[in-house]
Amino acid sequence: ALSAEASKVRDALIKHGLETPMIDNGLTTEEKYQRIKSAFEDVVYTLGLDLTDDSLCETPHRIAKMYVKEIFSGLDYSQFPKITVIENKMKVDEMVKVSDISFTSTCEHHFVTIDGLAKVAYLPKNKIIGLSKINRIVRFFGQRPQVQERLTQQVLVTLQTLLETDNVAVSIDATHYCVKARGVMDASSSTQTTALGGLFKRSDKTRSEFLAK
Amino acid sequence: ALSAEASKVRDALIKHGLETPMIDNGLTTEEKYQRIKSAFEDVVYTLGLDLTDDSLCETPHRIAKMYVKEIFSGLDYSQFPKITVIENKMKVDEMVKVSDISFTSTCEHHFVTIDGLAKVAYLPKNKIIGLSKINRIVRFFGQRPQVQERLTQQVLVTLQTLLETDNVAVSIDATHYCVKARGVMDASSSTQTTALGGLFKRSDKTRSEFLAK
Ligand SMILES: Nc1nc2c([nH]c(=O)n2[C@@H]2O[C@H](COP(=O)(O)OP(=O)(O)OP(=O)(O)O)[C@@H](O)[C@H]2O)c(=O)[nH]1
Ligand SMILES: Nc1nc2c([nH]c(=O)n2[C@@H]2O[C@H](COP(=O)(O)OP(=O)(O)OP(=O)(O)O)[C@@H](O)[C@H]2O)c(=O)[nH]1
Repeated sequence: ALSAEASKVRDALIKHGLETPMIDNGLTTEEKYQRIKSAFEDVVYTLGLDLTDDSLCETPHRIAKMYVKEIFSGLDYSQFPKITVIENKMKVDEMVKVSDISFTSTCEHHFVTIDGLAKVAYLPKNKIIGLSKINRIVRFFGQRPQVQERLTQQVLVTLQTLLETDNVAVSIDATHYCVKARGVMDASSSTQTTALGGLFKRSDKTRSEFLAK
Repeated sequence: ALSAEASKVRDALIKHGLETPMIDNGLTTEEKYQRIKSAFEDVVYTLGLDLTDDSLCETPHRIAKMYVKEIFSGLDYSQFPKITVIENKMKVDEMVKVSDISFTSTCEHHFVTIDGLAKVAYLPKNKIIGLSKINRIVRFFGQRPQVQERLTQQVLVTLQTLLETDNVAVSIDATHYCVKARGVMDASSSTQTTALGGLFKRSDKTRSEFLAK
């Protein structure tokens, strides 16, 4: 069974049309691991690599483990972080901002790494969230195949849901290795995306306080 | 048919036990593309992703194209760069050094991106190589599943072969996303490897001139 927070977040993402497009295939984690391992045995063979070599023989196993337990583990809401939210008894009414949250993700178009920094802020209403939980939420959604725009929105709606306020802002600056290591091979570009709610969207002052370094 | 340089380089790597472990599976490029596409259709389905979604439906095609034509294209010696080597008529006898050659590669243990900079130097004997060809050689071997140590040695032996001298040096500094984005999740470490031939190995002076910034 999922935690109350995980269910609430999933429902909110579905309601906003922001859920990662999934279908229930009924496979267990072990079945997923086995199928991905077999698929990569075929890929390694097809590329002409020698699967009996000691450096390559474990590659299908490693990739299957990595897909199921690591880089795509955020598809599974049972992995949603335990969230600590406390009452705003100290009446904080100014912005709480966390900068330079380092995370990685995987481009859903090429299954290639995205390397990024996130900035997250909110104006506390009744609730205060444990600081590390903000990083954990960014990482959880990073552990999915992603497009950067959706990742940014998913973090926004998750925090709005948990903090029970619209006044949340998220911005992400990321390097996409599908742009750097292949295709256009752009050595230095990065992509910025922003998702603003409530006052961060409506008030020029709040908006620019967030967007400023 | 391969170019004379590509054949010479391949033979030299085999002789030194440095060839990427391959077996001939007899598949054409089109057959490889189709098999890898099918394998990734299964992986995407197994992960529970919706293959009918407009953002995901082309993912198996994109990855197959990327594996065959881009990030693993260096497994195919017909893609070896055209090499221009000229006679050393100008009697260059000091080190030629190329620094900060940016390249990317793919870790053969996890099929995750490696992002690196290479430094290459040689002491000219009878031959001088077109400068851009050094970058192209690094990139060619980067476009394979790799371990950094083998990549470093492959570039060394390739240049020794083409330049007809042992006096070649290669060093690589790289970030492995299999270390940064999964597993130990080390945010900042990088790996340095060096391969030195001839005087770069034997003469302390030459060695330290190369290794210095
Ligand atoms: N908006 C957005 N686009 C993305 C993200 N990740 C990602 O790969 N893309 C883009 O998705 C598009 C996929 O295009 P495509 O179907 O022609 O694939 P391709 O590999 O042949 O394109 P390319 O070689 O130009 O990269 C590319 O323009 C790629 O840069 C992302 O997070 N957000
Ligand atoms: N020497 C060397 N080791 C490498 C390279 N790339 C690469 O993944 N490795 C290492 O290969 C090893 C594979 O170990 P493993 O079979 O236990 O795989 P794993 O994914 O469970 O290990 P991990 O979670 O510690 O990364 C890891 O220590 C990984 O860091 C490389 O280029 N050179």
